[in-house]
Amino acid sequence: MKYYNYFPTRKFQIYQIFASNTNLGKTIFSTGLIRSSISKSHNNKYNYYLKPIQTGYPKDDDSNFVKTYIPKVIFFENLIKFKTLFKYEKPVSPHLAADNSIPSDENVLNKIKDYVSECYNESLNNGGRLFLETAGGVSSPVMSGTIQSEFYRVLRLPTILVGDSNLGGISTTLSSYESLLIRGYDIPIILLFNNENYNNHLFIEKYFNENQNSSIITPKIFSIQLPPKKECNDLTEYFQSNDENFKHVIDKLEEWHENRFNRFDEMERKAKETVWWPFTQHDKVNRVNVVDSAYKDLLINYNDNNNNAPSLSETFDGSASWWTQGLGHGNTKLTLTASYASGRYGHILFPESIHEPSLSLSESLLDGVGKNWADRVFYSDNGSTAMEVALKMALTEDYKEKGKETLILGLEGSYHGDTIGVMDACGPNIYNQKVTWYAPKGIWFTPPKILMKNNKYKIHTDINVSSYDSLSEIFSENRIDNDQLSYHYKQSIENQLYHYMNQGYKFGALIIEPVVMGAGGMIFVDPLYQHQLIKSVRSILKIPIIFDEVFTGFWRLGKQSGAEFLKINPDIAAYAKLLTGGLCPLAVTLSTEEIFKKFLGDTKVEALLHGHSYTAHPIGCLVGNTSVHEYYNLDWNKERECEEQDKLFSIWRKDILQQISCLPNVNGVFALGTLLSIELNDIDGGGYASNVAKLLIEKLSTFERNSIDDFGIKTRPLGNVVYIMSSLISDKKSIRNIEQKILKCLNS
Amino acid sequence: MKYYNYFPTRKFQIYQIFASNTNLGKTIFSTGLIRSSISKSHNNKYNYYLKPIQTGYPKDDDSNFVKTYIPKVIFFENLIKFKTLFKYEKPVSPHLAADNSIPSDENVLNKIKDYVSECYNESLNNGGRLFLETAGGVSSPVMSGTIQSEFYRVLRLPTILVGDSNLGGISTTLSSYESLLIRGYDIPIILLFNNENYNNHLFIEKYFNENQNSSIITPKIFSIQLPPKKECNDLTEYFQSNDENFKHVIDKLEEWHENRFNRFDEMERKAKETVWWPFTQHDKVNRVNVVDSAYKDLLINYNDNNNNAPSLSETFDGSASWWTQGLGHGNTKLTLTASYASGRYGHILFPESIHEPSLSLSESLLDGVGKNWADRVFYSDNGSTAMEVALKMALTEDYKEKGKETLILGLEGSYHGDTIGVMDACGPNIYNQKVTWYAPKGIWFTPPKILMKNNKYKIHTDINVSSYDSLSEIFSENRIDNDQLSYHYKQSIENQLYHYMNQGYKFGALIIEPVVMGAGGMIFVDPLYQHQLIKSVRSILKIPIIFDEVFTGFWRLGKQSGAEFLKINPDIAAYAKLLTGGLCPLAVTLSTEEIFKKFLGDTKVEALLHGHSYTAHPIGCLVGNTSVHEYYNLDWNKERECEEQDKLFSIWRKDILQQISCLPNVNGVFALGTLLSIELNDIDGGGYASNVAKLLIEKLSTFERNSIDDFGIKTRPLGNVVYIMSSLISDKKSIRNIEQKILKCLNS
Repeated sequence: MKYYNYFPTRKFQIYQIFASNTNLGKTIFSTGLIRSSISKSHNNKYNYYLKPIQTGYPKDDDSNFVKTYIPKVIFFENLIKFKTLFKYEKPVSPHLAADNSIPSDENVLNKIKDYVSECYNESLNNGGRLFLETAGGVSSPVMSGTIQSEFYRVLRLPTILVGDSNLGGISTTLSSYESLLIRGYDIPIILLFNNENYNNHLFIEKYFNENQNSSIITPKIFSIQLPPKKECNDLTEYFQSNDENFKHVIDKLEEWHENRFNRFDEMERKAKETVWWPFTQHDKVNRVNVVDSAYKDLLINYNDNNNNAPSLSETFDGSASWWTQGLGHGNTKLTLTASYASGRYGHILFPESIHEPSLSLSESLLDGVGKNWADRVFYSDNGSTAMEVALKMALTEDYKEKGKETLILGLEGSYHGDTIGVMDACGPNIYNQKVTWYAPKGIWFTPPKILMKNNKYKIHTDINVSSYDSLSEIFSENRIDNDQLSYHYKQSIENQLYHYMNQGYKFGALIIEPVVMGAGGMIFVDPLYQHQLIKSVRSILKIPIIFDEVFTGFWRLGKQSGAEFLKINPDIAAYAKLLTGGLCPLAVTLSTEEIFKKFLGDTKVEALLHGHSYTAHPIGCLVGNTSVHEYYNLDWNKERECEEQDKLFSIWRKDILQQISCLPNVNGVFALGTLLSIELNDIDGGGYASNVAKLLIEKLSTFERNSIDDFGIKTRPLGNVVYIMSSLISDKKSIRNIEQKILKCLNS
Repeated sequence: MKYYNYFPTRKFQIYQIFASNTNLGKTIFSTGLIRSSISKSHNNKYNYYLKPIQTGYPKDDDSNFVKTYIPKVIFFENLIKFKTLFKYEKPVSPHLAADNSIPSDENVLNKIKDYVSECYNESLNNGGRLFLETAGGVSSPVMSGTIQSEFYRVLRLPTILVGDSNLGGISTTLSSYESLLIRGYDIPIILLFNNENYNNHLFIEKYFNENQNSSIITPKIFSIQLPPKKECNDLTEYFQSNDENFKHVIDKLEEWHENRFNRFDEMERKAKETVWWPFTQHDKVNRVNVVDSAYKDLLINYNDNNNNAPSLSETFDGSASWWTQGLGHGNTKLTLTASYASGRYGHILFPESIHEPSLSLSESLLDGVGKNWADRVFYSDNGSTAMEVALKMALTEDYKEKGKETLILGLEGSYHGDTIGVMDACGPNIYNQKVTWYAPKGIWFTPPKILMKNNKYKIHTDINVSSYDSLSEIFSENRIDNDQLSYHYKQSIENQLYHYMNQGYKFGALIIEPVVMGAGGMIFVDPLYQHQLIKSVRSILKIPIIFDEVFTGFWRLGKQSGAEFLKINPDIAAYAKLLTGGLCPLAVTLSTEEIFKKFLGDTKVEALLHGHSYTAHPIGCLVGNTSVHEYYNLDWNKERECEEQDKLFSIWRKDILQQISCLPNVNGVFALGTLLSIELNDIDGGGYASNVAKLLIEKLSTFERNSIDDFGIKTRPLGNVVYIMSSLISDKKSIRNIEQKILKCLNS
């Protein structure tokens, strides 16, 4: 069976050759590199030249050109191969040359992956080097119109940039370099001709030396003698006289490659020695995920898979990197947004200031998740601080004059973050048990949970278990008047409220996570119950309603906000995670004008005295603004698989859910939006500290590399709950793969 | 008196013309633009063509070329002027052409500012348009070797990018565009020739339409007919036939310019309606700082200055944007670092994972601020969360079993952030007064404060006021044995400790901000007292020592960490603010291995269960890594002005301090590192809620625009304390200016 690998390994080096413009001698440099690579590979290393896309063929057959200048003796030893994958006659950009039949990017990429894997397998015992020569310049398009730097990003191959030695070439070289850099490529080498009229290589070398960056490899500049004029056909002599020079390039590449893999090999150990991971019992850490890069839904890990030697491979980011990912890793639109904000502003002190990023995002939010209810946007850094702000907005008594402790109302199983103030707003659980200063300040009602089991959605209340056929039924507005539970909820809630009021309790706010309580264990709560709770609390206690939408906000569950599910608006709501598309920290707390006005007064003492240094930092705000617009413009219907009414959707197929729900080792399952959650049958009783899900998670993470489409799935358990969460742009094919894998793992 | 302005105003438009490569027809496009600009300016608008740098002169005299094609009748009306500022004969890049006498960037920039100001003043009543044509490509160097996109960044002029219509030109155009974008330029227009062989303009137009970004202006693409071959000298006809086309470009620019200024004019109002500012009494907000961009130490505000019409002007960021700025706004090295991290990773789930940004930064920190004491790095998002983590690291009892409340020891006037847990670690103050859930959990000792008054440093203790001549004396290690205060401190501290212990108090940690308590009012504490406090607490209570270095860390006070001043290491320390050079949120809590080991165990319950979604986000970590290396490599001696021993330094001159210290309206002053703090004589008693400093701050913010070097200073008061803080790279000249301005304002 074929073993797929298209990433560099310690023994198999791969480099891509990009150029700053067309006609800069890319193929001459490739030839020089291949010649020297061969001559340095007397230990039988295999050498490959791959030209994925060739235009102007056969006149400009780069493979053939390179071949011409490889000493014949080499061929007999079969250590060198040449391959062109897509050939076009017209000597123009591939998007014009291919005007009759345009292969899809996926098709082209798969051919490349396939060929690289072939070379990898062929050279497995000897090691090898593959040089992949791109077409045109860094930002030139491939056949589909995707620009090359984007097209090749999924492989993120180490890059040799061919610089421009002509007049103006400093500019094109540096700009091309930057275009590669912002897409996350490593560029250990810049190669260009030594053109004595301009000496661009000298300037570029000086430039990189003066602008060294401790976090980014400084490209080493190599200049090569200009070739004789085009008319002269035989370049043998030229290449011979430059072989030594190219050998230095190969040496440098070799050195860089070795360093890279040496670093890989020490990262796990070094991480274990220096880092203190969040939410991690260090004594139980076994394998560390060494992440080399990430792209869209995939993390590229350097790990030991299936007992092979450690190598790079793809893992599906199955927890959407802690529920943050919306638009995929390495998203160029977000990168450019962040870069522009960084270049234009850096960070700006926020009080009494305004800049376009913060204003645009505020307007977008008030017109989006805050539409029809929110008037104000308060910025902070994460869900926890956003909820601290929400608490401060709701509870405004002078602490010395407050008399009896003011409590909040909430739901059992809720979770609002890790700073101690918001911990106090949650009932006792394992997260806060060892926090010395934790002091619960609330009353938490027991919410009715929903899970699908044996093809039916079941709502578990204190009095019975009700059964429903579909999510649409559960979310139907008719239930308010027609479902027998509606009356029961109202009765039960109001009885409890009066009970606590009679006991003299004082309440300052109701806090809920709409529909799904995330960190508490992916608990799917009956929306009717939450709807009724809010109504009753509003009418009886007249206290602010806070929605913690850190997890549920921005289409995580397929709707813009949890409020849409509950058909009722809060007075205050906190958002974070998806807010920046999955790029960087930013959080907001939205409120009504009524809440805001409580803080007006004559002095600062009355004001909301909260703020973090990077409040409303321009990068976060601008990336947030782009993200929420991107979400808004996504075509949700296109991705809807689960046929439901009322614009409910799930990217997970209902028939798969039903199959899972019938398994004996599954307590129940549910899916909504991007979330699929499976509660396993745990003989130990479940809960966060349980290890029941560990086995399943391990099974999901492994894979055989015998197909281009196979990948491991990385996720983290919440006790006996295993959940998979995609980004908002995950492709259907991957999701279908994951579904099959889950079924297989649950059945094995 | 000349009124300096080199920014666009509503009536005075300025555009810079950048090109994707050399020889793309920049000057032809300039000519077309000027022709159409004139013909559209029958309302007597003035038109200017400025070529700051010209090489190949006089053969390639671009000014003259443009002039040639301006209809003669126009000149008589004197509505058009041409200017070339620096001319060189050699037709090569300016860095080569100017090899004999290289003017400094400042010199060149000042000439440009000067000329633009002249044009602005000349056209004041009529309005005008100025087109500034750059030389070569976007990333081509000016004479000094600074690349143009960097060189012109200080003006951040709206940009017309000349695209490349040749084979390969898609790539150079898109890469040039990206190089401009990441430096924060707005590019409303891309102009290129209509070359039918390649139709690059069609592809580029499609590309931008398909990649629209809600946060960044989509350039409008205009293609212009190719000019006749070079041999043909007279282009009059060519220009005539393209005038209509260029008029559309001017229309688009005009529209964009109008929109920009319309937006400026509504930003203040819209901000007041939608944003909820941190630490701000909205009822007292008068002027909102509309920040258009920022560069190095300067914020570019759109504001009404001195009752002129609102316009853009420069303000010194005198609070270093809430003490965050280290390497200046719009720092390209940080932008590229952030971009690369974004492109390579996006955000990655951190638990049990490692990526290069987090590992490099961890290593850098343990080798830097954590050297010789720290073993572990825990990541979070801001100073407040980093201190919450520090508290959790120190206090580890089960909350149900803790018995008596565990308190912390601290200093009066300390401040650790705005989340409720760390608020509880500070004594009552105006920040926490209205926080209903605030409950002080500590004992706070009264620290001896230091201020310079009448040329002497005075330490105010409970028994006397001691006087010192220099900071070196105050920080001298000799004081431990020789200063009479040393014994007094020990006695006083230990008496108090035993007193509280005898009363049955239980303590879990000592928390201090070394040397300066920032948010509490820039209180300069006797380092000897802190040194003694730590020693006594360590020997008697054996509890962890926590340093809150959020403000003091990373050379803010001229040393890498506060620990260096105190000559004693903590067990736990929190860092944030300067950590990312002033770009984005990131915080760390460092600890010893001993602290870390307390959290090892069999289950997750024993682990440190804290974490935020974006923990150790790659952008923050990589930018952090670059920043701390940059700090480390700064030449501190070069900036030292205040002559002190023991490597103490201040960028503020001692003689200025002395002058300030003698003023009757000043209680005292001090300066250390980048910080200058002035305590004003406040008849109301001072404190955070006081308004005494407001007048001074207002005076500092105003300025006359009659010199290139004049600027307003923006800072925020802390009650009766006014402080100015620079970045770590502020130039001496600005600091000298500020000192004089402060003296002038204090004396007026």
